[in-house]
Parts: sequence; structure tokens; C-alpha cells
Amino acid sequence: MEPYTLYYWPTIQGRGEFVRLALEEAGVPYRDVARGAKGMPQVEASLDFRCEPLPAFAPPVLRAGELLIGQTTNILLFLGARHGLAPRSEKGRLWCNQLQLTIADIVAEAHDSHHPISVNSYYEDQKKEARARSKDFRAARIPKFLAYFENVLAANPARGSFAVGARLTYVDLSLFQLVEGLRYAFPKTMAQLEPQWPRLVALCEAVRQRPNIAAYLASKRRIAFNEDGIFRRYPELDR
Amino acid sequence: MEPYTLYYWPTIQGRGEFVRLALEEAGVPYRDVARGAKGMPQVEASLDFRCEPLPAFAPPVLRAGELLIGQTTNILLFLGARHGLAPRSEKGRLWCNQLQLTIADIVAEAHDSHHPISVNSYYEDQKKEARARSKDFRAARIPKFLAYFENVLAANPARGSFAVGARLTYVDLSLFQLVEGLRYAFPKTMAQLEPQWPRLVALCEAVRQRPNIAAYLASKRRIAFNEDGIFRRYPELDR
Repeated sequence: MEPYTLYYWPTIQGRGEFVRLALEEAGVPYRDVARGAKGMPQVEASLDFRCEPLPAFAPPVLRAGELLIGQTTNILLFLGARHGLAPRSEKGRLWCNQLQLTIADIVAEAHDSHHPISVNSYYEDQKKEARARSKDFRAARIPKFLAYFENVLAANPARGSFAVGARLTYVDLSLFQLVEGLRYAFPKTMAQLEPQWPRLVALCEAVRQRPNIAAYLASKRRIAFNEDGIFRRYPELDR
Repeated sequence: MEPYTLYYWPTIQGRGEFVRLALEEAGVPYRDVARGAKGMPQVEASLDFRCEPLPAFAPPVLRAGELLIGQTTNILLFLGARHGLAPRSEKGRLWCNQLQLTIADIVAEAHDSHHPISVNSYYEDQKKEARARSKDFRAARIPKFLAYFENVLAANPARGSFAVGARLTYVDLSLFQLVEGLRYAFPKTMAQLEPQWPRLVALCEAVRQRPNIAAYLASKRRIAFNEDGIFRRYPELDR
């Protein structure tokens, strides 16, 4: 099989990280194109109607043979089916996709906690509004979303401790990334709230210890969290 | 076939409208449960772990036999495959889903144009921030997204004037709803910008004139746009 090509920003985890984690867990070869020499023009080309018949609106984008796939949840829908990271049944696939879309919703809100006014201006130019939005995000949105995911884990009728069925799916990998990102961005808030979500915390540790994920996290392929990504540590936004 | 049940707020178009349009175009029977007597408790039950084995995080939710499906794009993925509102090929299905996810992104931004700080407080309490966010939304985001969709229409190699392939898909219905919503919320901005997107404008008219859609729009089932929904007309946010 031709290796996949991933088009994403080279210096942040961002939304691309949800795709990277799925590719790493599946153990399939991929080229993270922007991290090589002269990669950025290729990322830009994946968004350009002059270069591609059906370009994406924004990264991440995955090339898989003749397919060029955009939107994180859509890429995971594809990878999940192809690499055993989602159930085979329609019901299971839809449930995975639904949970991943709900993760995408809180990820977008995490981004807007530091950029509530415009993606086109700096954090420094919307700090006051970011404080107000982060306050609501910490007090109302993180608890609501993470309690939902904790309940999803508790409600899974299958044995094991995964989100969907009895085997790992891409949703588990994404829940790990979500919790890790929130811990990075809001360490005080998360330290205080985490005891409410024991299943979610246990799932994160289980994901972290999977051989392929552990190897990835220890490698140079894993970019560190930083203040250019979605999850940013600004102490003033964490009370 | 058992009719579908739609769980959504009874007084707004909101995200539920993308589902309603697909159901109406497909001509399949459905019960819009909250619009009947004592419907709201049923909407709430669709989100409640005490009532459902796998409840959704938020409406809209669609019950289809034993399936309970949440997240707008996920419901459309299901309906598209089942009712001929999406191509049969994997490539076509992924492309539809990708475009629908991109529509969902701008819909979320349209919502945040009047609620940039918190969904838990009133517009009146975040008016100043809403003015700043709307300014950016009008100047940068609407043009970027709608130019993308115009280019998608231009790049479709199939005959006809649809977004994907040679037949109508749920993406066309959703583009109609998106443009109509933006016209309602930002009439001045849209009147000025629309000439840049002739294909998108023509698609909207074609969707509006489809028999099932025309009948729906003229019926009491179509809720009018209003200031409780996603697309709200606040003149101060339209310059």
C-alpha cells in the first residue's frame, strides 16, 4: 500500500494530532509532509483549487491513493473503517462518528477560549474577552462535556473500558488527546475537576501505555504542546 | 417502514433545520416530536442516560428504528446513504461529509457572532463583544467560506449545478439553508457580497423550487427565522 500523506501545520499538534494518533496506533506508514523540507507549499496546495480537483477548506488533509480527505472527523471515519479503529456495524460506526463530532465541538470551544473574537488577530488583542470566555468554558463547558464522556464510558455495555464496544477505537485516542490538551491548558481547573471522571482518567492512562502510542509519545514525531496550538497555557485563563 | 422521530427544539430552525430539509426532500414520514403536545420531555429524554442507552450530547437527534443518532452531520450521513441524498461511492460520500462539516463550521461561527462569550448568558450581556466578532465574521469569514463553496460548485466536473456529482445531495440543501440564514441575519452584508457567488445563488433558487422543498417552505412545518435561533437579525451586527 502506498503510504498516506498528511498535510498539516508542522509546529503544532492542533487538529492534526487526532489524525496522527490514529495513524500511529494503526501502525501504518505516513508522511507528515510539512515536517520535511519544503513541505509547507504542499500543505497550501492541498487547499488550492488550482492544484487539486477537490481541495479542503483547511488542514488537516489526508491523501490516501486517489482520495484527498479533509475535516478531522471525516479522516477518522475513513481511517477507522480501514484500519480496525471503529466497529464494523453501521450502528457502531455512527456512534463513533457522533462521539468524535462531540469531541470536535469541545475542541473548537477550547480554541475559542483564547480566540473568542477573531482567528485573524492575536491573543493579546482579545485577552479581556478571552478571560470572560475561559471563565465560562472552565465553569460550564468542560464539566458538561467531560461528564458526558464519563457517562458514555460508564454506559458502554461491552467488557473493557473503552468508549465504544469491547475494542479500542479512534474515539478513545481522541479522548486521550482532549484530556491531555485540557490538562496542558487548564492545569488548575483539571486538577480540581478530574476526580469526578475516574473512567476517563483511567482510559487516558490505558491509551498512553499502548505500545504504539507510547513509542510515538516518546519520539520526535510528537510535537510538544505550545502557545500556537489549540490548547494553550495562559495562566490568566486558568483563574 | 416506521416513521422517523426527530428530537429538536420546537420554536427555532437551528441545526435541526438541516435535518428537516433532508427529510422533506426525501419525502419520508417523520414526527417532529417537540412540536406536538408534551414533546419537550421527549427531547430531554433523548439526552438522558437514565432514559436512553446511548443518548446524544445535544439536539438534533433522530430515532430510526433501533438507532438513536445525534450530531447534525452524522444524521445527514445516515439519511444521505439511506435515501439517495448522497453518492453511492466511498469517495462521493466522504466528499459530501467533508462539505457538510465545513458548513457546520460556518454555522457554529454564525452562532458565535451573537454569542462570542457564553451560550449561558444573553445576547444583551455580550453585545459589545458580539459587535467585534460579527465585524470579523462579515469581513473575513463569510467571504472565505462562501468563496470556497462557490469554487466547489465551479469545480464539480459533473453536469448540472449541484455541489457533488450530477444529482442533488444533502449538501445542496444545507448550502441553501446556510445562504438563507446568512441573508436573514446579515441582509446588508449579503446583498453586497452575493454577486461574487453566482453559482451559489443559482443553487439556492434551484433548491427552493424543488417540489418537496417548495411545499415544505410554504407549510406550517417551516418555522420562521427568529431571534432565538442560530441566524439572528440584529441590525447592529450588520454594520
